[in-house]
Amino acid sequence: MSWSVLKSWSVIFGGVSFEHEISIVSAISLKKVLGDKIKHFIFLDSSHSFYDIAPEKMQAKTFASGEYKSCKKLFLGLGGFYEKGFLGAQKPLSDLGVALNLIHGADGEDGTLASIFDFYKIPFIGPRIEASVISFNKILTKIYVDSLDKSRVKTLPFCRYHRDELPYILDGSKPIAFPYPFIIKPARLGSSIGIAIVNKQSEVEYALDSAFELDDSVIVEPFYKGVREYNLAGFLGIKDGQKNTFIFSQVEEPSKKDLLDFNDKYLDFSRTDNAPKAQIDSKLESRLQEAFKIIYGKVFEGALIRCDFFVIDDEIYLNEINPIPGSLANYLFDNLEKALESIHLPRNKNIPITYAYVEHIRKTKGK
Amino acid sequence: MSWSVLKSWSVIFGGVSFEHEISIVSAISLKKVLGDKIKHFIFLDSSHSFYDIAPEKMQAKTFASGEYKSCKKLFLGLGGFYEKGFLGAQKPLSDLGVALNLIHGADGEDGTLASIFDFYKIPFIGPRIEASVISFNKILTKIYVDSLDKSRVKTLPFCRYHRDELPYILDGSKPIAFPYPFIIKPARLGSSIGIAIVNKQSEVEYALDSAFELDDSVIVEPFYKGVREYNLAGFLGIKDGQKNTFIFSQVEEPSKKDLLDFNDKYLDFSRTDNAPKAQIDSKLESRLQEAFKIIYGKVFEGALIRCDFFVIDDEIYLNEINPIPGSLANYLFDNLEKALESIHLPRNKNIPITYAYVEHIRKTKGK
Repeated sequence: MSWSVLKSWSVIFGGVSFEHEISIVSAISLKKVLGDKIKHFIFLDSSHSFYDIAPEKMQAKTFASGEYKSCKKLFLGLGGFYEKGFLGAQKPLSDLGVALNLIHGADGEDGTLASIFDFYKIPFIGPRIEASVISFNKILTKIYVDSLDKSRVKTLPFCRYHRDELPYILDGSKPIAFPYPFIIKPARLGSSIGIAIVNKQSEVEYALDSAFELDDSVIVEPFYKGVREYNLAGFLGIKDGQKNTFIFSQVEEPSKKDLLDFNDKYLDFSRTDNAPKAQIDSKLESRLQEAFKIIYGKVFEGALIRCDFFVIDDEIYLNEINPIPGSLANYLFDNLEKALESIHLPRNKNIPITYAYVEHIRKTKGK
Repeated sequence: MSWSVLKSWSVIFGGVSFEHEISIVSAISLKKVLGDKIKHFIFLDSSHSFYDIAPEKMQAKTFASGEYKSCKKLFLGLGGFYEKGFLGAQKPLSDLGVALNLIHGADGEDGTLASIFDFYKIPFIGPRIEASVISFNKILTKIYVDSLDKSRVKTLPFCRYHRDELPYILDGSKPIAFPYPFIIKPARLGSSIGIAIVNKQSEVEYALDSAFELDDSVIVEPFYKGVREYNLAGFLGIKDGQKNTFIFSQVEEPSKKDLLDFNDKYLDFSRTDNAPKAQIDSKLESRLQEAFKIIYGKVFEGALIRCDFFVIDDEIYLNEINPIPGSLANYLFDNLEKALESIHLPRNKNIPITYAYVEHIRKTKGK
């Protein structure tokens, strides 16, 4: 596939995840930004069926009311999506273009959709399977980033706990090793769901219960009130004819609320106005970009990601990787459409199947 | 799904990987072991089409000759595999049972098939997506195991290189930090493919070229000649009515060849005779089992895996995780059939899709 044809897209959204609804909001926002460059809006519903949603139906009520079920059902197959035709014959969706994976949370960010698209050979923008698993599980994110270049980017210290350990944390035989305040997060959820800042002993049990409601594993980190926070989006692509070039968004300093709750985040996913640039000097901006490059590596090729950093005592810490940021962080880019056209999509390796060994063994055995 | 119905299986094998052929050998061997408990042999060919292979056709030549294409083609859908019926209507394969993922290498061990089975709600034995990604990439295996309990299980030190760094390794500006001999492995291939022991400077370039032919990333480790090596298979399951119990195979001390080449490994995948037990004391056996438990954790639930350990100076090191060992390491178990019946398959979390937030936002906006 050549670079020049990547000029139309189809958005895949929904998914069976706690972030199902913000994915809908995110897709509706992206429609405002990309307009008719989006050829199809493909909705994945709670039973893992796909529907081709007409653009004029891209409103929250279509989904909440179940009205989406009157839209055309789609089926996955080699090379793309298919609709059932006359007498059960299948017709491919010819103008799919490149799929934009906009399913936040499970199904979209855990590697499921990446695997499916790779398997069926559907070109897509989004994290590949390794990148998905690394960024979806906060424990793996930590150990991945810690294995890179610590002089450029660090992570906060953390403890991890499994649900089975809950009684021992509560009876004090396995106490949490950080002083208050600390922050408790389910290992595998984004969008602030299930995250709590714990200021004193009496808040521990409720916070852990809430987190374990959502995941079997949680992580605990120290909480730094008022820490400086910077968000930067980007990807590996082509710029001024140069391949393998990092293309960055502007840096944003997000609002200073301690913790965005789900409502705040919900609104965050519907942003379409350009964000104000962070007031930082070019040296810090370069250092953030260097940290981004190290994390992105080759692992995140094919994805437009946003890294959220802390700066503490002039050191850069990765807070989290958003491998599919809300409405693709359009508000950080001057021109999202142009940006998307320049993303580099990794090719799958060509693996020859020759049966050389089977033939060799057969000859050896004389069969 | 209850535990008691897991008494019939279908084998999924083939796949687009350098290990395509050993997967065929592995499936043929498993047929000898499990006999008619296997309801279907489902072959994934080089173009990602599935075929239902009749048991009497389970011979190497069916695949090498392309004859498999005359078998019934299958299609994935919600709940299982489907065959095309009269006028294109689809008929599910009603007696699929539990799918045994026996695709070694890419497609099977990289998380692709796990994602697809989870997505289509097909019960299966094999590593889930996180477990696949962690065990498929040797760099991630290292950093995962190193993040566990180093007093119980360690890994050998390693360096990693990307293909782009090759000129700098060769011109000496980025020399390999280990003394000779060392071992070079592609980051993401099993079955000894592309692995080389390097004894002197003159062998470095060829070894690196061979490894980079197969993967963009390689790892380098010190090589210990004659190191004691022990293989142990197992899984989390139910034993004597007790859930959440680890069930272990016997320990094997594999043959002492420095490095199995692909032919040796090929034969290794066709083993059906019981292996001799390693001559070790019960204390070392327990320590190997403890190391196995720490690695398996909850991450590998649903999979029968084999861990290959080194013992150096009385310390246990993980060499590699085989998340789908050849013919399911049947030769290490007294009774593979009984073992498979007792594996615990993790359930997918039930995620309610309620549209509570969408409704809330709509009301707030007065729409």
